Amino acid sequence: MGSKYEQGLDKHAANYSSLTPLSFLGRSAHIFPNKTAVIDDDITLTYRQLYQRCLAMASALHDLGIRQGDTVSVLCYNTHELLESHYSVPMTGAVLNALNTRLDANTLRFILEHGEARILLYDTDFEALVGEVINGMESPPLLVAIAREGGPSRLARLDYEQVLASGKLVSARAAPDDEWDAITLNYTSGTTGNPKGVVYHHRGAYLAAMSNAMAMDMTADTVYLWTLPMFHCNGWAYTWAITAIGGTHVCLRRVAADAVHERIERHGVSHLCGAPIVLNMLVNDFHRDGKTLSRTVQFAVGGAAPPSTVIRRGKEVGFEITHLYGLTESYGPSMLCVRQPEWNSLPLDDLARKMARQGVGLHAIDEVAVAGSGTRLAPADGQTLGELLMRGNTLMKGYLKNEAATQEAFRDGWFHTGDLAVMHPDGYAEVKDRAKDIIISGGENISSQEIEEVLYRHPRVLEAAVVAMVDEKWGETPCAFVALRDADAPPDQQEIIDFCKSHMASYKTPRRIVFGDLPKTSTGKIRKNVLRDWLKSL
Amino acid sequence: MGSKYEQGLDKHAANYSSLTPLSFLGRSAHIFPNKTAVIDDDITLTYRQLYQRCLAMASALHDLGIRQGDTVSVLCYNTHELLESHYSVPMTGAVLNALNTRLDANTLRFILEHGEARILLYDTDFEALVGEVINGMESPPLLVAIAREGGPSRLARLDYEQVLASGKLVSARAAPDDEWDAITLNYTSGTTGNPKGVVYHHRGAYLAAMSNAMAMDMTADTVYLWTLPMFHCNGWAYTWAITAIGGTHVCLRRVAADAVHERIERHGVSHLCGAPIVLNMLVNDFHRDGKTLSRTVQFAVGGAAPPSTVIRRGKEVGFEITHLYGLTESYGPSMLCVRQPEWNSLPLDDLARKMARQGVGLHAIDEVAVAGSGTRLAPADGQTLGELLMRGNTLMKGYLKNEAATQEAFRDGWFHTGDLAVMHPDGYAEVKDRAKDIIISGGENISSQEIEEVLYRHPRVLEAAVVAMVDEKWGETPCAFVALRDADAPPDQQEIIDFCKSHMASYKTPRRIVFGDLPKTSTGKIRKNVLRDWLKSL
Repeated sequence: MGSKYEQGLDKHAANYSSLTPLSFLGRSAHIFPNKTAVIDDDITLTYRQLYQRCLAMASALHDLGIRQGDTVSVLCYNTHELLESHYSVPMTGAVLNALNTRLDANTLRFILEHGEARILLYDTDFEALVGEVINGMESPPLLVAIAREGGPSRLARLDYEQVLASGKLVSARAAPDDEWDAITLNYTSGTTGNPKGVVYHHRGAYLAAMSNAMAMDMTADTVYLWTLPMFHCNGWAYTWAITAIGGTHVCLRRVAADAVHERIERHGVSHLCGAPIVLNMLVNDFHRDGKTLSRTVQFAVGGAAPPSTVIRRGKEVGFEITHLYGLTESYGPSMLCVRQPEWNSLPLDDLARKMARQGVGLHAIDEVAVAGSGTRLAPADGQTLGELLMRGNTLMKGYLKNEAATQEAFRDGWFHTGDLAVMHPDGYAEVKDRAKDIIISGGENISSQEIEEVLYRHPRVLEAAVVAMVDEKWGETPCAFVALRDADAPPDQQEIIDFCKSHMASYKTPRRIVFGDLPKTSTGKIRKNVLRDWLKSL
Repeated sequence: MGSKYEQGLDKHAANYSSLTPLSFLGRSAHIFPNKTAVIDDDITLTYRQLYQRCLAMASALHDLGIRQGDTVSVLCYNTHELLESHYSVPMTGAVLNALNTRLDANTLRFILEHGEARILLYDTDFEALVGEVINGMESPPLLVAIAREGGPSRLARLDYEQVLASGKLVSARAAPDDEWDAITLNYTSGTTGNPKGVVYHHRGAYLAAMSNAMAMDMTADTVYLWTLPMFHCNGWAYTWAITAIGGTHVCLRRVAADAVHERIERHGVSHLCGAPIVLNMLVNDFHRDGKTLSRTVQFAVGGAAPPSTVIRRGKEVGFEITHLYGLTESYGPSMLCVRQPEWNSLPLDDLARKMARQGVGLHAIDEVAVAGSGTRLAPADGQTLGELLMRGNTLMKGYLKNEAATQEAFRDGWFHTGDLAVMHPDGYAEVKDRAKDIIISGGENISSQEIEEVLYRHPRVLEAAVVAMVDEKWGETPCAFVALRDADAPPDQQEIIDFCKSHMASYKTPRRIVFGDLPKTSTGKIRKNVLRDWLKSL
């Protein structure tokens, strides 16, 4: 840069500050002090109250010895306490580690030890689990009990509300010295091996929140229902985004169709998010019970493409569906299937095919590409399969204490998603399968996901998963595991195989169908490794 | 930061890039290639075309020798060429200097020399002016003529479209190496002395664009009419914001009520911006001609508070008005009078009083305050007058080649706006006057703006400006300069004084009323220094 544009034009306190989502809470408390920030069953907090509680908790955590770079873990439902932790913990300079409530004691113990948690805040509903977790830990974290439905704790010496009440209303640090400082730690729910600790930074969290707010056209009128766990990538950054736009958070301890419907209607919910299984369940249950919504509600689904039946039934009950894609490593959603105006006139099945694609990067993502041969990128032909790659400001700092995995994930200047995708001519990427789930039969790549999509179209199929089965002649062939809607109905392998044959090339048709319940991870993903092990053990 | 959150968690090409508004154009060209990006009379450009033209022009500018840190100036109406320059010039690493078309030749020459412009792109409507400007310059910039309504140039060797056509469609640098690098240079329209060159950087421009898009709830459906000059703080960052959200830019060479109404209706305009004088003119002319808009259009007004009559009449013709505040030094709008839901039930005059306030900081502003005595801040009592202060990421790098003025503006860790304001108990700031326009009478501060607001309420007053007049007894007393709506009607000093007396404390009432046209700057601001000089010369 020529010196005239540098000399005497430095950064200083008046024209530069670290980007951080912590600034959103202070701003909304300033502009909307008396507006409802959080509704959590019978507890309602205004933005001023939420801000003051977070300041007080940050001060109290500091008094408990929490300092820059420490880890504070939280095991809690989607309640105001977990939302507060997204501000109070980083306000101290520490890192928030929101734990998946569906994990077993061993995994939770591994995470607390690996993340070096100094304090564990937990809902006393999990009292027994926490007892099991800390049993046998050499230096367990300090326990702080959140006594809501679970009642008072017999395990923890400290109580969340008492700790908070001990805090002073001092003005916390508004921003970290360096926007690259860690803000949260989220463990992957790997289907194999130990979970990896994904580290987010303040800058990325700020940009992820802004991008996600813009992706869903959110405004100060937004009322957001917490069907998505806040422990999933910090609730896809909506823990911060809803606060950024001055919207209202509606908490929810457990996702059930009645509770969701009631809250949407009572609080005028405008947006909610969730995995396909949640969307499916809500749409099915609303449909079964003849429940519709009194106004259109935006539903952002992430994790898999919404089938056309779900899009149609969703619309009938009142959900407008948007398809997002992301990973723990990308702060949750990093891609969005932007709906083009001309799609509105498409037949439903064509629309569903368009919407099934993972799409394009959010604002904070610089580039999305599909790896080709060597160091080249795949052409945008909708055909060439390669690993989906991304780069941008909302990709993690890396994996905690795991340089090898970090370097592997970030090799060649790209983040490697581990998903196999094609790039369509219109610049929309579509994930075809997890790299490790691809089936190679007679030298041909077969996408297990493509077969699963066909299986899901069969009216009797509730869930389906396809994995590779060793075959002497072809190397591998597809084997399908299927759970039927009516578990008591007689399974009919040939009926399913014939259905597949009529919808796909015959070499892709599963050779075998196994009926029964499907094993899942704590986040509801089907554990294909278990199915593979089961096949091998035959 | 504890080392575990730093080790092996570095920035690199896959997880970090410079924030820049240039990324918006590439993204929108990717997602919306065939969508209309720009409508400029009979020229329509899709996002793909706009992007390709900017890439080609960047390549051509590079071939003309433009390099990192160079300055490229543009003298042009609100056309697609000026919009393109907001991308093509920074794509080369150079700095865009959009010139105010209303400036005289001497001032333009000063700016070109001070900014060291290497190239001047200009609309041939300004051929004579440009001839005058470069006449006598030791090393005038290379001239590139934009031949639209003004026809071909006899002065410039190069033509914009020919230069562009010579450019290659190479992929320009997507982002600068450092997001603190300069992106644009905007000269203040100081009422006294030489204009100062305000330098913006890529990070600030990115954040200003995002903040302004969110401030006005913009989405991909936004259609933006360019009534605001793009040379004003880069069109308040909407040159970048509209592209960020994938909206449509509707160009406009000259603001006239008929042309504005026609474009709003024909193109489905949803948003426009402008100074109070533009809003006033449009509302008056629409009202006079019985023109209304077929749907509500958002009008963001900046520069002064909208009076209640304008709010009411605006609503009647179809404008929903939002009040913004900012300065060249703050990338244009940095504050916003956020409308609280409960204001909707207020009587119009009360609503106007609420909306008259400059309000609260946009997302990219960290803090807005009013200076108190010493280094303290003024209390939020709605009374204590002090200089309005700001800090945040959308305050300029500084003034080009003017370290003294830069340090003065940024002293004590704040940007000093030069405006006198109060902070209301609800956290909304209200500017009462320019610091230098305050009148001190018998030891009491009198806001010239407060008197002007009363004068504007008089049905016969078109424009009013109040300045201090030397007074032996009181030190200073207010003197009002008034232009009447009907310039031929007989002026009546006592009528105006009586009207003031019935609406304000008597010590604030102007002692003298002078009738006639008011002298203005090139941006339409009343030149109070000329009025003061005139008073002194009496």
